Amino acid sequence: MTQANVPINLDRLMERIFALGKVGALPGGGVKRLALTDEDLEGRNLVRGWMSDAGLTITTDVIGNTWGIRSGAEEGPPVMMGSHIDSVATGGLYDGSLGVLAGLEVIESLIDAGITTRRPIGVGFFTNEEGARFAPDMMGSGVAQGALDLEEMLGVTGIDGKTVGDELARIGYAGSAPVKALTPHCFLEIHVEQGPVLENEQLAIGAVTGVQGISWTEFVIDGNSSHAGTTPMAMRRDAGLVAAQIACEARSIADEFGPPQVSTVGTFEVSPGLVNVVPERALVTVDLRNTDDQLLKQAEARLNTAADEFALAQSCTISRRSLARFAPVEFDGALVDEIEAQARTLGHSVRRMPSGAGHDAQMFAPNCPTAMVFVPSRDGLSHNIKEFTSPEQISPGVDVMMNVVLNQAGLVS
Amino acid sequence: MTQANVPINLDRLMERIFALGKVGALPGGGVKRLALTDEDLEGRNLVRGWMSDAGLTITTDVIGNTWGIRSGAEEGPPVMMGSHIDSVATGGLYDGSLGVLAGLEVIESLIDAGITTRRPIGVGFFTNEEGARFAPDMMGSGVAQGALDLEEMLGVTGIDGKTVGDELARIGYAGSAPVKALTPHCFLEIHVEQGPVLENEQLAIGAVTGVQGISWTEFVIDGNSSHAGTTPMAMRRDAGLVAAQIACEARSIADEFGPPQVSTVGTFEVSPGLVNVVPERALVTVDLRNTDDQLLKQAEARLNTAADEFALAQSCTISRRSLARFAPVEFDGALVDEIEAQARTLGHSVRRMPSGAGHDAQMFAPNCPTAMVFVPSRDGLSHNIKEFTSPEQISPGVDVMMNVVLNQAGLVS
Repeated sequence: MTQANVPINLDRLMERIFALGKVGALPGGGVKRLALTDEDLEGRNLVRGWMSDAGLTITTDVIGNTWGIRSGAEEGPPVMMGSHIDSVATGGLYDGSLGVLAGLEVIESLIDAGITTRRPIGVGFFTNEEGARFAPDMMGSGVAQGALDLEEMLGVTGIDGKTVGDELARIGYAGSAPVKALTPHCFLEIHVEQGPVLENEQLAIGAVTGVQGISWTEFVIDGNSSHAGTTPMAMRRDAGLVAAQIACEARSIADEFGPPQVSTVGTFEVSPGLVNVVPERALVTVDLRNTDDQLLKQAEARLNTAADEFALAQSCTISRRSLARFAPVEFDGALVDEIEAQARTLGHSVRRMPSGAGHDAQMFAPNCPTAMVFVPSRDGLSHNIKEFTSPEQISPGVDVMMNVVLNQAGLVS
Repeated sequence: MTQANVPINLDRLMERIFALGKVGALPGGGVKRLALTDEDLEGRNLVRGWMSDAGLTITTDVIGNTWGIRSGAEEGPPVMMGSHIDSVATGGLYDGSLGVLAGLEVIESLIDAGITTRRPIGVGFFTNEEGARFAPDMMGSGVAQGALDLEEMLGVTGIDGKTVGDELARIGYAGSAPVKALTPHCFLEIHVEQGPVLENEQLAIGAVTGVQGISWTEFVIDGNSSHAGTTPMAMRRDAGLVAAQIACEARSIADEFGPPQVSTVGTFEVSPGLVNVVPERALVTVDLRNTDDQLLKQAEARLNTAADEFALAQSCTISRRSLARFAPVEFDGALVDEIEAQARTLGHSVRRMPSGAGHDAQMFAPNCPTAMVFVPSRDGLSHNIKEFTSPEQISPGVDVMMNVVLNQAGLVS
């Protein structure tokens, strides 16, 4: 493995994180930089300017993904880094931005050190990773890597009634490079963990093995509204009870399957919602995730069977619909090994871990060796204006990125 | 027992029920006749007019309760009947109105038959039984019988910002009779069951043994909002799970205690209420009812202990407040026996049963022998525009009332 020990310029990186964080800044901290808004445009132009200042060759594709390439000694597909600069409505300064700006920092530090790599190296930002304005999320990387249809995505209408295509054109980021213009040698993304594991275990680096499969199901239960005092228990058709039993069962599934299976009931509504009226209708959602698709399917099946039994016992009807279903993504084992090894060589504590959230990297995974580096999130917070990762926590992650990139790109001997 | 077999005029009674049902009628059926509104005033004037036409001596007290007395051969406290004519926002034609108009019908049928009783007989309507505009419910009967403070109740502000005292004055029903002006020999109320038991068991009459004690508790659970994908189960503080466990426990309590214990979770809210976010806060209400106060206290204690355990296991904080707590009310055993016996003598199927809902009668119970007669509610529906009890189901109940009243008031030999 290459261990050039090229220093990164942490001050420059942090200055850029804070400068980008001023674009769409919220009064109490954090940012609102929804995809393809004026704030996103301002952020894009800022980052594109830095890429340009660094002498990178910049390309924008038909879905607005924008990347800069530094030539290597040889032609060929680049070692790519990148992430996104759009945010949720109350986002933090690090989610996405870190991956873009740390990638740029790796390239600029190599330039500063006068090092030329054998392969080209690049960094990009991908359109609408968050999905907060336009669904689905990971739209830009998904289109670029062939998982999502371009025309369909350009026609997507956002929460404000505007379409992706119109907004791309409006902000001047409807580029000319076609779908699949970006075919990396490998893809590396550094990201804040967005969870509490690294902090809790006092670890510096997560070598991300893949992305959990996600299954979202909405259950709607219909029973009968009746009086809390005058209706004997045996005559009730309590939709709310069925929903509560589903919520408890979802938890039991995660407990019994054990990690990495997780389950979350985030939505729970009953109607009419009066203290002394048995609910006639209830709506509950269950979010199941696992890195193993077979286990995820088992969890889904067990939940569905149990839900049917709960409904039957209350003489309720139950309907379900899938709100989302993504199979797990497995990152490249050799690349994950390398991240882990580079972290250890640099003296940083590290663990292998799956990502619980989706990332642009997963769209690259089917097409090229892909992996991710996680750094800790304070209190596990993300999608929150209090999201925070200190410079001292960022630095080890970027050092690992540098070494993996150098090893993948190759030094000119 | 007196069995005079005095016929009641069912047609007149039904005509009055429908006439009163036109006051505040809703487009799809049912009525909205909230206490002390213009609609309540119109209903009061209609019923007072019928009382007056029947030659009753009418009194209105300081909280707007209004009753008419037919003299007996002797002086002394009257055998009283009555209920309420206010409704909930989407009420039926029978809840309350039946008790008032059937009471009036008993008196008028006696007049028609030329029968004089030994004791006076009366019928009244009591202010704001529903509590839908002004809390608490059973306000008029509660004030009249000394359970609620007059001045405090006059100062109660309703859902529309107006006070009981101002609205009583506005509609001209702030009477001069003092609190406790009404001291009956006994009190009898006929009411629709508002539940499914009689219909389900195909019975004509319920001899009501008392009113269930009611305990309403609101639990608020505070945990921590976290990401559904990135937060391991062991690191969660899931407020929604605690609420779901409380809901399931409430059900278990009712199942294990057995009838007449009932439990209802009618309100269940989680926030932020997003599919992929562990709820940071949940609110759940539990309505526990039992006719035995010791058992009700046991149910409350078990629920509270379990709720604390659930919260502790999730490292959540939990707070609770009592939204309502009424001890069970036991009606007069001899009067209940008499209702049951008169029903059987008249050839009607009958069962003893507690009332799951509150009624004006319970306010009289501490001060005079009190009992109630239930007739079936179709599908158990009440507080619903579809509330329905047929004339053929009403008739047996009024016949029972007639015979009990005659027995209590005594015939002039």
